[in-house]
Amino acid sequence: MSARTPVDPPPDSISGQGHGEFDLISRYFAPLAGPGAFGLGDDAAVLTPTPGRQLVFTADAIISGVHFLDDDPAGDVAIKLLAVNLSDLAAMGAEGVGYLITTAWPRKLDEAWIAAFAQGLAEGQAAYSVVLLGGDTVATGGPLSLSLTAIGELPANTALRRNGAHVGDNIYVSGRIGDAGVGLRILRDGLTGGEPADREQAIERYRRPKPRLALGRCLRGLATACIDVSDGLVADLAHLAEQSGARMRIELERVPISPLASLIGGAAGAIVAGDDYELLFTAAPANETRLFAAAREAEVAVTCIGQVLKGQGAEVFDHLGNAVVLDHGGYRHF
Amino acid sequence: MSARTPVDPPPDSISGQGHGEFDLISRYFAPLAGPGAFGLGDDAAVLTPTPGRQLVFTADAIISGVHFLDDDPAGDVAIKLLAVNLSDLAAMGAEGVGYLITTAWPRKLDEAWIAAFAQGLAEGQAAYSVVLLGGDTVATGGPLSLSLTAIGELPANTALRRNGAHVGDNIYVSGRIGDAGVGLRILRDGLTGGEPADREQAIERYRRPKPRLALGRCLRGLATACIDVSDGLVADLAHLAEQSGARMRIELERVPISPLASLIGGAAGAIVAGDDYELLFTAAPANETRLFAAAREAEVAVTCIGQVLKGQGAEVFDHLGNAVVLDHGGYRHF
Repeated sequence: MSARTPVDPPPDSISGQGHGEFDLISRYFAPLAGPGAFGLGDDAAVLTPTPGRQLVFTADAIISGVHFLDDDPAGDVAIKLLAVNLSDLAAMGAEGVGYLITTAWPRKLDEAWIAAFAQGLAEGQAAYSVVLLGGDTVATGGPLSLSLTAIGELPANTALRRNGAHVGDNIYVSGRIGDAGVGLRILRDGLTGGEPADREQAIERYRRPKPRLALGRCLRGLATACIDVSDGLVADLAHLAEQSGARMRIELERVPISPLASLIGGAAGAIVAGDDYELLFTAAPANETRLFAAAREAEVAVTCIGQVLKGQGAEVFDHLGNAVVLDHGGYRHF
Repeated sequence: MSARTPVDPPPDSISGQGHGEFDLISRYFAPLAGPGAFGLGDDAAVLTPTPGRQLVFTADAIISGVHFLDDDPAGDVAIKLLAVNLSDLAAMGAEGVGYLITTAWPRKLDEAWIAAFAQGLAEGQAAYSVVLLGGDTVATGGPLSLSLTAIGELPANTALRRNGAHVGDNIYVSGRIGDAGVGLRILRDGLTGGEPADREQAIERYRRPKPRLALGRCLRGLATACIDVSDGLVADLAHLAEQSGARMRIELERVPISPLASLIGGAAGAIVAGDDYELLFTAAPANETRLFAAAREAEVAVTCIGQVLKGQGAEVFDHLGNAVVLDHGGYRHF
């Protein structure tokens, strides 16, 4: 973990002793460091790979006011930062190993915020079996900016890819879709309506997404293609279709949606909302029994929502067989 | 590589098709992707570790106006971002393997800048044998912020650490010290004086530091402790001293300094300036012949500047044996 000389150094920035950033690192981040990270006291972390396993890498950045709200609790921001990255590992069928984090703190950020952020990381580490391996803290005149690289592993040649769907496969999604989108609209736009418990859950799902690591692991050898739902169900379906060179057709009424989806335009709104971090995947119909057993093992519901066909693109149909044209302008394959 | 839904989505941000960020990724970054990164078209990259080798990880962030200047050329910013991270790998004795990058672009940034930035990455990849493994592009209302995680590897149990210096070891530094500090002062403060060729080289050293990867590799089994000079020679010496539980004494006149060091207060100014990215390390005097042979193999000068003693802290003495009190306020061990 490092904290380097800025272009315009504050009076005490050269010493390496009593430096604000070094203090923050040792106080809040060093306790999160795993074996091989040397208490963040070295130039880099060393990891001994497990024989027979491959490593998996992903990196995502989130920025205050863009990917989370300025007044989201610090601990939730930490959980979200970890979750959006671990969700990418889950989509590959990998287990988490560790992560590196770089943080650009605005000067106004107080130490209590940083302490709560580190506490959120600690909570996420415990929940998802990852450790801190390194990183960097810098100051910025802009908004709080956080970047995380997650490292996972899996048995050699078992990675779930986006490109393996076959014509005839079923399309499945885990959990339900639209909760996070509703949560965002409640927090950002003051959206009203619905049961208080459902509203709270929607907010929780937006602020503290749960990466489907257990499910991803169970899908090795079963799913033919897999992606996590971050951009929105339809957008991510389009990614799967493009990478697999196939046409992906889902039926709107089969999509498991948020109990509050009616607040954002029903199923049609839910499937273009983002940030649910569920897994969207394909599998051979012959494997459905094994698939549902795997989902039970991972303790998450899995629903068949469509089929892989010849052709290209993603399509949404209603139960009468009519193509659904979605709003938000963005999705217009029809 | 991903580009996720912002809190406040622009009209076309949901589609996953024709999206500005996806376009940028496929046009400029996908060509940089290495094997296992799947052309950045998947959730994460997969890496097969080399049997018998360990992996090394480090992450550093740089921000416009803090770690580089707003008008630094885009290609140089890319080189610097890679170099500051690869320098951490060099300090561990590791070779580069790959990297993940997250970029937060201000909206005013034009495509020509991004193209030149990607060209700089390509140049750095060729120079240092690393490939792009993934990342994320997001938009920010703040300054350009760049974060990079570098992945290296080395034979098991050969990593150079900061904590292995023994009493009686010599202290060495590679190359020379103060060039980058002079370069920064020329660019930022309009510092004048010196030969044009020296001035150009100082600017080059500030903008395009060269990670000492070849030297680091040659120091495996020879150096007892090692760090890269990013915070400044004395500050980094203090890190070595602290981690090794020893006293590190250097002699000011022995430090190889920039030909323009007189512009920043001579040797005393050079050793508190940062960003040189040379290697500072310790080794047993008995190994000096092997050490100099290793340095010749790595095609870089190495100079003995002091000794490891009992005690703690970093000390700078002049040739008369008097302790040197350094300016900049920060360093006051004496």
